[in-house]
Amino acid sequence: MDCKLYELQGREDKRPSPYCWRTRMALAHKGLAVEFIPVQFGEKAKISFSGQKLVPVLSDNGRVISDSWAIACYLEDAYPDRPSLFGGESGRAGARFMNAWVDRAIHPKMIRIVLSDIYDRVIMAADQPYFRASREKRFGMALEEFCDTSEARIGAFRAALEPARLALKQEPYLAGSEPLYADYVLFGTCKFVDLCSSQVLIAEDDPIYEWYRRMLGLFDGLAGGDGAAQGQTA
Amino acid sequence: MDCKLYELQGREDKRPSPYCWRTRMALAHKGLAVEFIPVQFGEKAKISFSGQKLVPVLSDNGRVISDSWAIACYLEDAYPDRPSLFGGESGRAGARFMNAWVDRAIHPKMIRIVLSDIYDRVIMAADQPYFRASREKRFGMALEEFCDTSEARIGAFRAALEPARLALKQEPYLAGSEPLYADYVLFGTCKFVDLCSSQVLIAEDDPIYEWYRRMLGLFDGLAGGDGAAQGQTA
Repeated sequence: MDCKLYELQGREDKRPSPYCWRTRMALAHKGLAVEFIPVQFGEKAKISFSGQKLVPVLSDNGRVISDSWAIACYLEDAYPDRPSLFGGESGRAGARFMNAWVDRAIHPKMIRIVLSDIYDRVIMAADQPYFRASREKRFGMALEEFCDTSEARIGAFRAALEPARLALKQEPYLAGSEPLYADYVLFGTCKFVDLCSSQVLIAEDDPIYEWYRRMLGLFDGLAGGDGAAQGQTA
Repeated sequence: MDCKLYELQGREDKRPSPYCWRTRMALAHKGLAVEFIPVQFGEKAKISFSGQKLVPVLSDNGRVISDSWAIACYLEDAYPDRPSLFGGESGRAGARFMNAWVDRAIHPKMIRIVLSDIYDRVIMAADQPYFRASREKRFGMALEEFCDTSEARIGAFRAALEPARLALKQEPYLAGSEPLYADYVLFGTCKFVDLCSSQVLIAEDDPIYEWYRRMLGLFDGLAGGDGAAQGQTA
């Protein structure tokens, strides 16, 4: 076995990346033993072998894949005899759309609410200058101007989740009767805000909260903690 | 054969319902011969046998189903030997989420832009009083106050479509390599705005436009017109 997942590491060994959580869950779904390698923002050299600068990076017996969606597709195709992440090609398309929806419709409404907490409380102090500079460049304004934990922002984030809420009123998981990669995509975001935000972004009476609690219990509670304790092998 | 689809009828025999277009495409996908029965807003008595007041209603050899999603599921389960609308259970879940996304994230951003055109140009003059009263009650304000064709509204509608745009950059159809019901869901909305709106809501350089043009060519161009000419049998 030589399967390694390089993932973002914050304070107290928290793993504060929604994308890395998608991959964690996908690896567990496939039942693959994996070594988790923590990478702080200041440790990009650890993943230079991947030819790019973002986590997650999977190294699987010499094959190197970056980008969580590409990793999911790789795992599905490389391990066809293990439990399917997609449940067929139209299920793969459904997961692809879920991936696009979370990235383009949910994350933009989420990030302004949680960014100040990530900066202040989650990432390593040594990473703060890099984080500030890269995010201020990306968002085109000062962090203090960008961050906004107002009720209006939280309400807009919750409203954006309405399609998932409606689907979860009809079936227990986004992928239907059992959780598949489509679920892990949104789960990564929910886990991320749960780990990082001081705000209650998903209320306890929300159907998404009930689903999230069930997701935390999968794979012997793999995702129940902050990522550290279970982080060495799965 | 005794398969009838009751669908909304407007001026010049246009069929201005996004939900009925979903069902039209689903019936064609299954290759089912069907008689289309036009229903104006003032003709709810035609569908009273369904026990509710909304179109589409499908009557298939004595079985009566209303609601476009319920009809899609019925067709899939009743005609398993014909081409699948979902491509399996995880594909059904993907289509369910697409259905929820279009209804909850796209339609609210679309309806304010097109409602004045629907009222002024699409529905029968005799239906205008009913339409105004029912919509003003639903939206809690006067039609003139609700309708808004500003650039900002059109921009927000186009921005809301971003997840579909991203998915269509990766695969030719939302359901993957071939069109399935997930495509018909968003297609119904695009056909609806194309038929009803005097605004250009989807620009020609948008990847969604190219996909829409391909969808219009399916089933010998079933959806290429306004619904009337092809409306009697399929």
